[in-house]
Amino acid sequence: MDVTYSYQNLLEFSRVVFEKIGCTPEQADLAAKVLLRADLRGIDSHGVARLSGYVRLWEVKRVNAKPNIRVVHESPSTAVVDGDGGLGLVVAPIAMEIAISKATKCGTGWVAVKNSNHFGIAAQHAMMALEQDMIGMAMTNASPLVAPTYSVERLLGTNPICVAIPAGKQPAFVADFATTTAANGKLEILQRKNAEAPSGWIQNKNGEVSLNPHELKDGGALLPLGGDRDHGSHKGFCLGAWVDIFSAVLSGANYGPWVPPFVSFLAPPPDPVGEGIGHFFGAMRVDAFRPAAEFKSHMDNWITRFRSAKTIEGQPAVVIPGDPEREYESLRMKGGIPLNGKVVEDLKSLAQKFNIELR
Amino acid sequence: MDVTYSYQNLLEFSRVVFEKIGCTPEQADLAAKVLLRADLRGIDSHGVARLSGYVRLWEVKRVNAKPNIRVVHESPSTAVVDGDGGLGLVVAPIAMEIAISKATKCGTGWVAVKNSNHFGIAAQHAMMALEQDMIGMAMTNASPLVAPTYSVERLLGTNPICVAIPAGKQPAFVADFATTTAANGKLEILQRKNAEAPSGWIQNKNGEVSLNPHELKDGGALLPLGGDRDHGSHKGFCLGAWVDIFSAVLSGANYGPWVPPFVSFLAPPPDPVGEGIGHFFGAMRVDAFRPAAEFKSHMDNWITRFRSAKTIEGQPAVVIPGDPEREYESLRMKGGIPLNGKVVEDLKSLAQKFNIELR
Repeated sequence: MDVTYSYQNLLEFSRVVFEKIGCTPEQADLAAKVLLRADLRGIDSHGVARLSGYVRLWEVKRVNAKPNIRVVHESPSTAVVDGDGGLGLVVAPIAMEIAISKATKCGTGWVAVKNSNHFGIAAQHAMMALEQDMIGMAMTNASPLVAPTYSVERLLGTNPICVAIPAGKQPAFVADFATTTAANGKLEILQRKNAEAPSGWIQNKNGEVSLNPHELKDGGALLPLGGDRDHGSHKGFCLGAWVDIFSAVLSGANYGPWVPPFVSFLAPPPDPVGEGIGHFFGAMRVDAFRPAAEFKSHMDNWITRFRSAKTIEGQPAVVIPGDPEREYESLRMKGGIPLNGKVVEDLKSLAQKFNIELR
Repeated sequence: MDVTYSYQNLLEFSRVVFEKIGCTPEQADLAAKVLLRADLRGIDSHGVARLSGYVRLWEVKRVNAKPNIRVVHESPSTAVVDGDGGLGLVVAPIAMEIAISKATKCGTGWVAVKNSNHFGIAAQHAMMALEQDMIGMAMTNASPLVAPTYSVERLLGTNPICVAIPAGKQPAFVADFATTTAANGKLEILQRKNAEAPSGWIQNKNGEVSLNPHELKDGGALLPLGGDRDHGSHKGFCLGAWVDIFSAVLSGANYGPWVPPFVSFLAPPPDPVGEGIGHFFGAMRVDAFRPAAEFKSHMDNWITRFRSAKTIEGQPAVVIPGDPEREYESLRMKGGIPLNGKVVEDLKSLAQKFNIELR
């Protein structure tokens, strides 16, 4: 049974939890806003459902609530940020601000981050660029759940990419997607329903096709976008590898199978090749390429043309990336955020632990 | 029947053809080298097989053999290049040089190109960055052959992306892929064999699954990477759209369904929204992020770990992006380039037209 909570109440609850683990008021506020953006946008797997996970990582000292987040290497258009083990929810927006500030000065800004943790949804960070008439990009690596084409080993995370592009009268183009056939959150939905997954999402521990959404518990793996070699899974592998290398090899974070797991009950690999997990952010000033008004009017034309494309009989209209999430955001900001029973239980445990109220 | 020609002879032949249409000796040489790189790397659809296509575009005055290629807008880390209708084979490497030069000065360089033509293989341009210890990126839009998820209209090209990343003792990581389930070249192979395509590559004019490799002649379309909605085709659509917008909306080229066709017998759309086709290039100095030696030793570790991943029984080893093309390159540089009968006929017609010899 789902229970609906207001955005404001969940935001306040999360803010207080982050304060309780020792975040400064400013950073607790920032972390809560970044976290809740996932719930608002309908990415339920990345929002308050993860709040207790962050707390547990803090309890085992794998999240530093008082990080000294700093630039450790830079050039006019680039920087590497050391997140000092802080919450990705805090490290990421600070790093993205640096990318935006570099772009203001020299056209574009690119920031690789090491020593961070999960950062919520990529779109939240990439979209920070939009208000400045910039294109924003965000990517992150994550715990290994994905097998490269031909392999039985889980060597990559679902490694999402977001590209956010401003438009004029039309809403922005915001593409935010895992580089696998299906994100882990989609699998969780099937697990709760005990429903079969489409072929091409998962393989079992021997690398055979599996439809069982619980397969990952038994050594199975998610598959790169494409699903199998005939359908281009080697391209999905390229995408996931690209995200991993930009996020972690450029920054000095852990990559591939060395990325520490999000869950506190699994220990990080004993032989790290870097620090924490890695992210990569970009900001490009539109007017570093052509006048912003001109660009935005062509983006409007692009979006309008694609949205009005002739569709297959019986199918919906072509979806412009970002449209579904924006609709969720407007509905849930007013009507509240439905949480499933397990998540509510989780939040109630947190309320009890910190002696606060969940309203 | 395939006939094998030496790399040097095909290079010289192509060089002379480009001179015959009016290219300067330097640009003819450059265009020939860029074109032949596709044949060397095993991307047969993008090499000398297209030489007569470029000549026909020149004949109908859609390729300018004496272009005034110039920067029309710039910032410290960005530029827009107007290709003046020149061969993409010439415009692209000049634009990539500008990206590299910007990166030398401020860490990264990003160049959007308008008013160009097909540029051969993306990897050729992205790989220019490798010798400078830079990461290279290249993308281009192309004639519309791809239907967005849910649509029957062909609105995007196969829009490839290449990311080339230097390593140390290991060869570079070079991922170069169309953002569709299968590149058009793969379809051409099936057409020649009259063999069925796997489900998920193509749809017919009504948007229904088709296995017929000739379907595009009858209003069918290639499908975005993923193939269908269940398998993530909306993500492939995001990728193709991203390439289209970076290549053309940023630069002022034609985008989406307005991209002019490569073949001379099809007229460009009568209502252009920009000039020619568009490309996008990037170069990032590795040492703008961390010392190059450190980065390269971790890339070696990344590559070694993935290459030695445990594989599915009966399957080959995990393929590091760029490995197959590098093997082709070394074989064909020595042993020559096999051309199929139709391509040989085509080259012989060119030889006759320009009164030159094909050896």
